[in-house]
Amino acid sequence: MKTDYQQILEELYHVIKVKPDAGQVAPYIPELAEIDPSKFGVHLAATSGEQSGIGDHREKFSIQSIGKVLSLTLAFQQRGEVLWDRVGVEPSGNPFNSLWQLEYEKGKPRNPLINSGAIVICDMLCTLYDDPLTELLAFVRKISGNEEISCNKQVAASEKKLGFRNAALINLMKSCHNIDNEIDEVMDLYYHMCSIEMSCEELANTFLLYANHGKLVTTGEPVITSSMAKRINAIMQTCGFYDEAGEYTFKVGLPGKSGIGGGIVAIHPGSYAVAVWSPRLNAKGNSVKGMQLLETLTSKTGLSIF
Amino acid sequence: MKTDYQQILEELYHVIKVKPDAGQVAPYIPELAEIDPSKFGVHLAATSGEQSGIGDHREKFSIQSIGKVLSLTLAFQQRGEVLWDRVGVEPSGNPFNSLWQLEYEKGKPRNPLINSGAIVICDMLCTLYDDPLTELLAFVRKISGNEEISCNKQVAASEKKLGFRNAALINLMKSCHNIDNEIDEVMDLYYHMCSIEMSCEELANTFLLYANHGKLVTTGEPVITSSMAKRINAIMQTCGFYDEAGEYTFKVGLPGKSGIGGGIVAIHPGSYAVAVWSPRLNAKGNSVKGMQLLETLTSKTGLSIF
Amino acid sequence: MKTDYQQILEELYHVIKVKPDAGQVAPYIPELAEIDPSKFGVHLAATSGEQSGIGDHREKFSIQSIGKVLSLTLAFQQRGEVLWDRVGVEPSGNPFNSLWQLEYEKGKPRNPLINSGAIVICDMLCTLYDDPLTELLAFVRKISGNEEISCNKQVAASEKKLGFRNAALINLMKSCHNIDNEIDEVMDLYYHMCSIEMSCEELANTFLLYANHGKLVTTGEPVITSSMAKRINAIMQTCGFYDEAGEYTFKVGLPGKSGIGGGIVAIHPGSYAVAVWSPRLNAKGNSVKGMQLLETLTSKTGLSIF
Amino acid sequence: MKTDYQQILEELYHVIKVKPDAGQVAPYIPELAEIDPSKFGVHLAATSGEQSGIGDHREKFSIQSIGKVLSLTLAFQQRGEVLWDRVGVEPSGNPFNSLWQLEYEKGKPRNPLINSGAIVICDMLCTLYDDPLTELLAFVRKISGNEEISCNKQVAASEKKLGFRNAALINLMKSCHNIDNEIDEVMDLYYHMCSIEMSCEELANTFLLYANHGKLVTTGEPVITSSMAKRINAIMQTCGFYDEAGEYTFKVGLPGKSGIGGGIVAIHPGSYAVAVWSPRLNAKGNSVKGMQLLETLTSKTGLSIF
Repeated sequence: MKTDYQQILEELYHVIKVKPDAGQVAPYIPELAEIDPSKFGVHLAATSGEQSGIGDHREKFSIQSIGKVLSLTLAFQQRGEVLWDRVGVEPSGNPFNSLWQLEYEKGKPRNPLINSGAIVICDMLCTLYDDPLTELLAFVRKISGNEEISCNKQVAASEKKLGFRNAALINLMKSCHNIDNEIDEVMDLYYHMCSIEMSCEELANTFLLYANHGKLVTTGEPVITSSMAKRINAIMQTCGFYDEAGEYTFKVGLPGKSGIGGGIVAIHPGSYAVAVWSPRLNAKGNSVKGMQLLETLTSKTGLSIF
Repeated sequence: MKTDYQQILEELYHVIKVKPDAGQVAPYIPELAEIDPSKFGVHLAATSGEQSGIGDHREKFSIQSIGKVLSLTLAFQQRGEVLWDRVGVEPSGNPFNSLWQLEYEKGKPRNPLINSGAIVICDMLCTLYDDPLTELLAFVRKISGNEEISCNKQVAASEKKLGFRNAALINLMKSCHNIDNEIDEVMDLYYHMCSIEMSCEELANTFLLYANHGKLVTTGEPVITSSMAKRINAIMQTCGFYDEAGEYTFKVGLPGKSGIGGGIVAIHPGSYAVAVWSPRLNAKGNSVKGMQLLETLTSKTGLSIF
Repeated sequence: MKTDYQQILEELYHVIKVKPDAGQVAPYIPELAEIDPSKFGVHLAATSGEQSGIGDHREKFSIQSIGKVLSLTLAFQQRGEVLWDRVGVEPSGNPFNSLWQLEYEKGKPRNPLINSGAIVICDMLCTLYDDPLTELLAFVRKISGNEEISCNKQVAASEKKLGFRNAALINLMKSCHNIDNEIDEVMDLYYHMCSIEMSCEELANTFLLYANHGKLVTTGEPVITSSMAKRINAIMQTCGFYDEAGEYTFKVGLPGKSGIGGGIVAIHPGSYAVAVWSPRLNAKGNSVKGMQLLETLTSKTGLSIF
Repeated sequence: MKTDYQQILEELYHVIKVKPDAGQVAPYIPELAEIDPSKFGVHLAATSGEQSGIGDHREKFSIQSIGKVLSLTLAFQQRGEVLWDRVGVEPSGNPFNSLWQLEYEKGKPRNPLINSGAIVICDMLCTLYDDPLTELLAFVRKISGNEEISCNKQVAASEKKLGFRNAALINLMKSCHNIDNEIDEVMDLYYHMCSIEMSCEELANTFLLYANHGKLVTTGEPVITSSMAKRINAIMQTCGFYDEAGEYTFKVGLPGKSGIGGGIVAIHPGSYAVAVWSPRLNAKGNSVKGMQLLETLTSKTGLSIF
């Protein structure tokens, strides 16, 4: 029998699918620029176990910055509150990719979901593990309950080759003594993390952790404490959407994270996680149809927090 | 019969009242510096009509920046979405009172809850009305259901006399053509708005509007649309606590606004508005015991959004 | 008998006068915007006593920022080296009227020839004298040897009325405790100083002081020490031309100061002072034909320092 | 027979040598940190052919940033005025190593004597030549008339390994499309240029070119035009001393360039070039005794331009 969520997703999917195309596919690297811009899928996983999805919801895509939440979760689990000595929890409020703010604040990034902050998190993982990528993937596979999840080495290599601004960020932080490991090693982990590929279905089920107060829905096993989950959710709410956090908070009203691969994931604590994918991005780097779908979903279900 | 809220507030009040004193009373002007730092009160008004309060919850204090939400509401009601042409909706992410950001962004403030943004809102009210202060007070009295609410002219005069940084902000915006009226007139309104005095009880009942989707609880009359209320709530969530928005969102998890008079108001959409008052402030300018009380309240009631 | 300087000036004057008009008259206030843009004059006063001039060299104009050198000289004479505690001696290197730099450097202006620095100098004069404008005019009259020199009260009033950015600067400095007197009083002096009117002939003879190591050429009386004259000359060299100091140093190679009234004065230590006036300004705010004339003069006379 | 310059240098040398030691040897890399801080030498080469020197004036040291003038000269000779499309001529006025200014100005450095500007110059040389280091050394040997001049590969390697801030600068410029070649290749040239070793005698004779309007004193051969020499001198005057350009211009009053190896070179157009070496640096990175000696020299000889 069809659930309500399935019905709602189907309705929204069909309405938004035929809306005029707006925005551009991320042009930075060939591998992303060549994605079919008409891809569109959405999947919702409820804490009750219910699964709903439609469109390209089972096709994998590059999760990009969404991966920052996963690496943060592993580092937070391992390091605890001391993690915040090296990265803040406040929005950056900055229109550009903010070298100056990082310079002004002496190499301590504003939060772990901007590039500089996620790089510091990767540096911590490099300190924690001999093979941090293997550990990160194992962690992601565990919380997703899916042993197939992997990264795309070609995407990682391509992004690393052209990532001059990120190289500027990490070198600045290194000069401020906020990077402990070799730059090359840290950036290698960073770009592999960004190149993880998941489908909407996989993403939604992975992020169910944050909707379930840090416990796996399948087994009840606590991966992080409920306080840690609350903290990560709060950061997603205020910092998950680049320079569009305020607008997103108004329109969607749920903690979430976007990636330039066109994916967005959002969670409703206690209820569900939802992932949507459409590669065309607005000027702020967020998926246009993804935003529309989430906005309508929360209005329709009355589940916005405001 | 005592309600649950009353019981919860009483418990929290007594626990937090005896905690060691931390923080400083705002030192900027004599009128505020002389406030008894041991004042402490809290009041919760539910959309159901229930009223709960304890301590100094019926004593008036200077609401200061909390007034920015009220002037924004009046201007938004009158001007609608066109208001956002002159002021943004994103957090400022800025550690200092941010002249440079305003200069970089050519005189358009980041959001209406920082000083520069609230000044632009006052400028709009000066354009709308011959006697904007009278209109603003009438508006506040209406939504509070209390004809006695007024401002403290001595506080307004004292703050205006020493408000050099605010004078720098408005002069910069005037040079960028984002102020239409005489500087003196606009600042006069701004400082009177900041000097409005209310008790926790009055504040909570006034802010019930935002918990009730823009309608007066008493009569059901719509003051603003539910979309407008949602927008204002989202701005309170991401921008209501100066440079501590991220921390506040984590700890309290409700839209709110603080003032340097030691007041904080927060709302739970659909349920209640709560106001707390304790004059000692942390380094970011937010009431120490006020934050503690709200944090425990949302944990206790399980009403945090995360 | 004609001197060499006279011959050179006449040659240059005729060549440059007929060059195509470029640039714009300063548009900020009506009094300056209405100046006949074809005005053009130049005057050179040598330490030997020789006087040479041509064109509108005896017509008065608004010296504007050139006056900053004169107020600095009086304050330096009175206060000595302690003056540099409140204002620096380095170029500002800043493309815009630099509120952010002033904010970053906590209200201490980079040098006394940018607006913020000249305002601090005026504040010092307000502390030194009961009637600082009268004292400043007496000082200027003395070093110019001309009792007729005065300011234009209408220009001063007009500039003050529209000087929002300067008002932002002084309010920011006041909030940083780098302004001791009433803002209104300081700005009053500042705008009257800018509105001083002189002809090229008067300007050149006034600035002969700096070419003569701080002594009056007429009487040999020392007004400032030779070290003070050297310091002021060095500041004119590195900071006298807004954001075009490097270009000017290359082209003209003499210490100097420009004003938005279209005047420029330059000095060759030991030899002469030269003043030129042409109201059309380039994008950096410096007189187009004035720059051309000085550039050719130093090339022709081989007197550039490089 | 002793010349006057020799006598003056000897007098100054003995007076300043015994002054109390102040400042610190540059600590960035072991090779520089281990230099004997008591080293002190000075050499003056006049356009007349006269040579004067004393102390450690024939001992080689790392010229560091002084090399920026030499690479600029070669690039300017080859590329002409079009060079200024990619780097400015104005002082940077910036207290820190200015990533933010570079970001604000979209990757175009303020001038060719700050690190970012010198890196852009190296990038041009990498485009011009297959083996740019060999060409640069050949050029330096030619204008110095000394075939022995070389660089210290160990110093270059050490600085490159720890040059995180410079790596941040070039990556930022690369992301702004102001670097054409491989980052590694450009930085390799940059650090080898900085590691060139010369004695005071060699430096003074090399910089005689700029005192001689771009012609070799020995043969009269023009290496650059006199206009180019004037331009480079003007840039040394306004930008040669980091954030201390204004102070240096006042005290020394000659175009010059300092390096963190403790060397300073200054030129008096038409007369002489003088090089001084003392490894202890002030807080701005300029040699303490070097500054003292040059200041006294220009006062003594009356050769300051002011």
